[in-house]
Amino acid sequence: MTETMLAARMHHVGEPMTLDRVPLPEPGPHDVRVTVRACNIVPNLANILKNWTTWFPQNPLPALPAIFGLDPAGIVDAVGADVHGFAPGDRVYVNPGRHCGDCLACRRGEHINCTSYAFSGYFGFTASAPRMLDRYPYGGLAEHMIAPQYSLVKLPDNVSFEQAARFGYLGTGYAALRKARVGTDTTVLINGISGTLGLGVALFALAMGATTILGTGRDRDLLTRVEALSPNRIRTFSTLDGAIDTWVRQTIEGGVDVYIDALGPGAPHEPFQQGMKSLRRGGRAVNIGATAGEVPIEVHHIMDQQLQLLGSCWFTAGEGQDMAAMAAAGLVDLSIFEHITYPLAKVNDAINGVASRHGGFSNFIITPDEK
Amino acid sequence: MTETMLAARMHHVGEPMTLDRVPLPEPGPHDVRVTVRACNIVPNLANILKNWTTWFPQNPLPALPAIFGLDPAGIVDAVGADVHGFAPGDRVYVNPGRHCGDCLACRRGEHINCTSYAFSGYFGFTASAPRMLDRYPYGGLAEHMIAPQYSLVKLPDNVSFEQAARFGYLGTGYAALRKARVGTDTTVLINGISGTLGLGVALFALAMGATTILGTGRDRDLLTRVEALSPNRIRTFSTLDGAIDTWVRQTIEGGVDVYIDALGPGAPHEPFQQGMKSLRRGGRAVNIGATAGEVPIEVHHIMDQQLQLLGSCWFTAGEGQDMAAMAAAGLVDLSIFEHITYPLAKVNDAINGVASRHGGFSNFIITPDEK
Amino acid sequence: MTETMLAARMHHVGEPMTLDRVPLPEPGPHDVRVTVRACNIVPNLANILKNWTTWFPQNPLPALPAIFGLDPAGIVDAVGADVHGFAPGDRVYVNPGRHCGDCLACRRGEHINCTSYAFSGYFGFTASAPRMLDRYPYGGLAEHMIAPQYSLVKLPDNVSFEQAARFGYLGTGYAALRKARVGTDTTVLINGISGTLGLGVALFALAMGATTILGTGRDRDLLTRVEALSPNRIRTFSTLDGAIDTWVRQTIEGGVDVYIDALGPGAPHEPFQQGMKSLRRGGRAVNIGATAGEVPIEVHHIMDQQLQLLGSCWFTAGEGQDMAAMAAAGLVDLSIFEHITYPLAKVNDAINGVASRHGGFSNFIITPDEK
Amino acid sequence: MTETMLAARMHHVGEPMTLDRVPLPEPGPHDVRVTVRACNIVPNLANILKNWTTWFPQNPLPALPAIFGLDPAGIVDAVGADVHGFAPGDRVYVNPGRHCGDCLACRRGEHINCTSYAFSGYFGFTASAPRMLDRYPYGGLAEHMIAPQYSLVKLPDNVSFEQAARFGYLGTGYAALRKARVGTDTTVLINGISGTLGLGVALFALAMGATTILGTGRDRDLLTRVEALSPNRIRTFSTLDGAIDTWVRQTIEGGVDVYIDALGPGAPHEPFQQGMKSLRRGGRAVNIGATAGEVPIEVHHIMDQQLQLLGSCWFTAGEGQDMAAMAAAGLVDLSIFEHITYPLAKVNDAINGVASRHGGFSNFIITPDEK
Repeated sequence: MTETMLAARMHHVGEPMTLDRVPLPEPGPHDVRVTVRACNIVPNLANILKNWTTWFPQNPLPALPAIFGLDPAGIVDAVGADVHGFAPGDRVYVNPGRHCGDCLACRRGEHINCTSYAFSGYFGFTASAPRMLDRYPYGGLAEHMIAPQYSLVKLPDNVSFEQAARFGYLGTGYAALRKARVGTDTTVLINGISGTLGLGVALFALAMGATTILGTGRDRDLLTRVEALSPNRIRTFSTLDGAIDTWVRQTIEGGVDVYIDALGPGAPHEPFQQGMKSLRRGGRAVNIGATAGEVPIEVHHIMDQQLQLLGSCWFTAGEGQDMAAMAAAGLVDLSIFEHITYPLAKVNDAINGVASRHGGFSNFIITPDEK
Repeated sequence: MTETMLAARMHHVGEPMTLDRVPLPEPGPHDVRVTVRACNIVPNLANILKNWTTWFPQNPLPALPAIFGLDPAGIVDAVGADVHGFAPGDRVYVNPGRHCGDCLACRRGEHINCTSYAFSGYFGFTASAPRMLDRYPYGGLAEHMIAPQYSLVKLPDNVSFEQAARFGYLGTGYAALRKARVGTDTTVLINGISGTLGLGVALFALAMGATTILGTGRDRDLLTRVEALSPNRIRTFSTLDGAIDTWVRQTIEGGVDVYIDALGPGAPHEPFQQGMKSLRRGGRAVNIGATAGEVPIEVHHIMDQQLQLLGSCWFTAGEGQDMAAMAAAGLVDLSIFEHITYPLAKVNDAINGVASRHGGFSNFIITPDEK
Repeated sequence: MTETMLAARMHHVGEPMTLDRVPLPEPGPHDVRVTVRACNIVPNLANILKNWTTWFPQNPLPALPAIFGLDPAGIVDAVGADVHGFAPGDRVYVNPGRHCGDCLACRRGEHINCTSYAFSGYFGFTASAPRMLDRYPYGGLAEHMIAPQYSLVKLPDNVSFEQAARFGYLGTGYAALRKARVGTDTTVLINGISGTLGLGVALFALAMGATTILGTGRDRDLLTRVEALSPNRIRTFSTLDGAIDTWVRQTIEGGVDVYIDALGPGAPHEPFQQGMKSLRRGGRAVNIGATAGEVPIEVHHIMDQQLQLLGSCWFTAGEGQDMAAMAAAGLVDLSIFEHITYPLAKVNDAINGVASRHGGFSNFIITPDEK
Repeated sequence: MTETMLAARMHHVGEPMTLDRVPLPEPGPHDVRVTVRACNIVPNLANILKNWTTWFPQNPLPALPAIFGLDPAGIVDAVGADVHGFAPGDRVYVNPGRHCGDCLACRRGEHINCTSYAFSGYFGFTASAPRMLDRYPYGGLAEHMIAPQYSLVKLPDNVSFEQAARFGYLGTGYAALRKARVGTDTTVLINGISGTLGLGVALFALAMGATTILGTGRDRDLLTRVEALSPNRIRTFSTLDGAIDTWVRQTIEGGVDVYIDALGPGAPHEPFQQGMKSLRRGGRAVNIGATAGEVPIEVHHIMDQQLQLLGSCWFTAGEGQDMAAMAAAGLVDLSIFEHITYPLAKVNDAINGVASRHGGFSNFIITPDEK
């Protein structure tokens, strides 16, 4: 008798998900099977489901019907023959990034630059990404999922599954800060600091030792709440009150060392441009936001002032393991998030509900073992 | 009796230079005096003299009347009390970059990121740059000049003064390649490869071991001449024949590792945009060209594909010394340049004449000791 | 009917190999099967077979009877279901390095720092390495072998299988030069420059743009032959004629930027110590040689002069692919090697014969398809 | 009438200092004059004065009679004509490092690798260092001193002069941690954690985000006091209780990422060797301690395990400014030090008294304005 499991699947683009009973998958030799205990409903999921095929046709979805779900956490329940580092019972976060293993980037160890890089349960980044989505057609919106051993992050006891399901957005911020070489010798500007992405950037910039963190957003109440995380090191500014670069240069003579764009979909171009103009000579910008379209950028200014504009896409499982160690050591405080949980059967409610969240402090989570 | 020297000076913006007799300057404790033997008339000089105050008011000119001249080479004829590494008789190139020594960037050893960084005999990069232009008001269009010891590059015997006077544009290319981490693991695209700047990028990319160098320009004859520098490793394409990124992706599967923009003033935006789209996932672009205005750039694409867009401004005297060692070792062939020389008295002819040069192979040089 | 193949195997430590007929292995989903066309008999193989279990008990051999053979090249003849980048008919070098995929180093993309890192057909580097040797119990001394896709290097047409079978020692040199950040701004000292390892370091240092390469050894004829590779950039010195550091400091004022130790087993400690003393302030040393035992090192001198002593173990398949591109572009000349070939049946003769080679120019190769 | 000042000077090697009245020096164009308010009596000063000429003859002392004093802090009271970044009244720490400005390292911006690098008021690092000691013959054991603008660190209000006079040992630790690339992805072992040097390493490793800090020493009471700085992240071990590497590997599976040697003069070789054996595969060691003589090191182990042994000498004024920003932001707590102050007239008492200090928590300070 074949075992089965429940999974939420989208059958056609833009349609609500249905709860389907599908065969319980078996792990391959390098894979593990995870009992999903929490999966994040990230704010962008609704866009992926409805608009991605038209907005970003170069970013293919998984073959439909598909199990979506970007950021799962749970318990290993079975392992393949060649898995040595993980065992049933391990509490893990599953990094959804999938790489092919044989392109030049993979053979260099630059997994995220894989020419077939894809997010299981979300979408792919290149024309050949469907090969990875076909190989691992499992997102976190199901009772179980299969994941390669290279994607796992072992969780410390003081990180809950709900918190771990936030690792995707947190890790995106962490990796951006690393690319910008943020440390004890840097000041940082974060556009969108009170959002789901920006709040994580702030938390990890604090842990990495940034001496001053400037943050912008619109909602003054949320900004005040962010400042309270470290009154000594965080200062915020509402874009309703003026231009970002004017404020930055008034606050730090010469400008900031690093600018991280963490604004969400639909952001206008001005904050991005003002962020670039907030940099000191020799400063670095990293884009992890959703600012869309062609942003007019003075490349002559970038040259003259030796600026850098870096793209950063997600984070590695190794970086995820570092984040787990940081949480275990008390370097980041994940207790600031409130978790709004839904059972798997209410996944469509959760996807719709996330739009009404109150800034980045809210975490929308599916808990498949909840009935 | 005060000694004097001849110097070409501009008295008012846009006016021709006049040949003036001025006092022979004495070096300060950390300075040397150089008898100028060759000074490059770089293609952009006419723009600096006529248009800079309106095009780039944030980049101040030296106080007028001023001795211009960006790229001098000559012989040390006097040294200050604290100079130990150079002595009268040394053949040198003078890097025009001047830094303050006490801003944070300077105290970190990042001299080009100095908040008062300026080019002696050319212009400054920030509002406080005039302090450096006032401290070193000497360009190369004179019989002698004062330069700080930190700016000197000792020349090997096999580099002529005329060749050394090319170091500015060559070094700009070299530093850009270094920022892009070009080496034996990289392919490179150079926009404007047959120009004064691009040709130097190609020469140094060859020396640094780039396996394949793709170059674009317009003039097919010049492009053929560039290909002949290394038929095995250089391939070129005229932008008259189509889109750059289409050609690049047909030539190298997945795109290039590195893209260097070396186009001159007045370049349209399309080649820059096509250069960005020519990069492989994880690729790096460096801008050292003169593409002006706000270039529409898809920052979402930069993020998704983990691209980098880096600005690079000039090069250090240390990098200049490395270039001298490369020339001494035969790693770069500086004999490819033809030198069109003028005496100091004909400096205005040289400035006008440079516009009619035939690509980057021509080198317009003032030789102040020529009568 | 099960297919079979011929393989040379060692049944007990120190015994000669026997030619055994064994089952033809099938590739797993991420693996390929390669028809071996050339496998290097590296100079150290005799030590591995006879002495490793006593010299380096922390470095486990494969379970006996075992197929040894470190550096194979051949033709892909079958591929697993998840292999996309390679296909039957591809000419490849097989990097013998095997990593687990799930330790922290692997999840960071630092494959060589894997806590179970092992060389298929040779030995492992840690107590847990046998798991990798058991998973891939195939060296190159057989008609066929199984290798993971991540280990392959696609060969250009101008690299023969015999030359490719040299990639192990060449790549070890290349990776060392990369760790030392050798480029156009560096001078290099190579101890053991005329040996199997040192000669490769010299070839790749030339390609990477090192301006001056100093090499030491004993045999003056061999040193003269090495100098002839680039009379302009290579200078050599016989250790029979004095101390290395004295010669280096006479040749390059202040010392060299980089020192690579490539001496073979049995080397005395003095050359290593003299190499360290040959470095300029801020210089870097990389050890890839076989100098054994505890070398007395003045760590206070390392501190005072800001020196670095770096260990480098082998090279990645990505670096191997870069080497292939360098060979294709003509950046390294692999035609300098002479190949002494043996059929598989004479493997013991080859292992004994390698001791009588004449410096690093000789390449001892098993060609399993030769009858 | 020439103004004068009081200065403590040593007239002959090993003799006590005498309090001399000497002319008040005037700053050169790039220099400032500082009224010294605090100067550290570092534990090694007695060795410098008595033993350096025999222990390390390659490290020249300043010409006698000389004003010693490595780590001064005070108030700028006069500035030279070319000083723009500092003004009378500024509270500053004076980094004693002096570089020539025209050697290749200086022209690269690598000031500490200067071929004439010297510590004003202490000693030089090379045969040509006396030129720098002659140029700046001023240590901190005087009422005033001259310092180049490049050596200054502006102090925030919350850092006292006594605390700033500790910056030398703190900065040595900070720079070592930076060379080791310590951050939120690293565990660190510090040998000598309770000493004057090691305690600073611990403080800054905490600020830089190291997740776990292991420290060794002898005195169990002092180790307990160090652990109390961060009970969650610091663990200590007395070398009286066993071998360091055994303890480290029991505590962190696979070993530590980074090992910093901060042991004082007279340390035996075993702790250094055990530190090297405590590193994980791919780990980095940095030596800033005083372990003397030739330490037997297995270079084959360094190669096999891809270890790095890095020397680090002091820190730049830029790094000092970062430390000041860290203190201002509350990232390091400098209140843990107790200050034992002496007037200038009692300098010999202070030098003798430092030997009886109780670990790194004690700070012996000369306060020249104290009567």
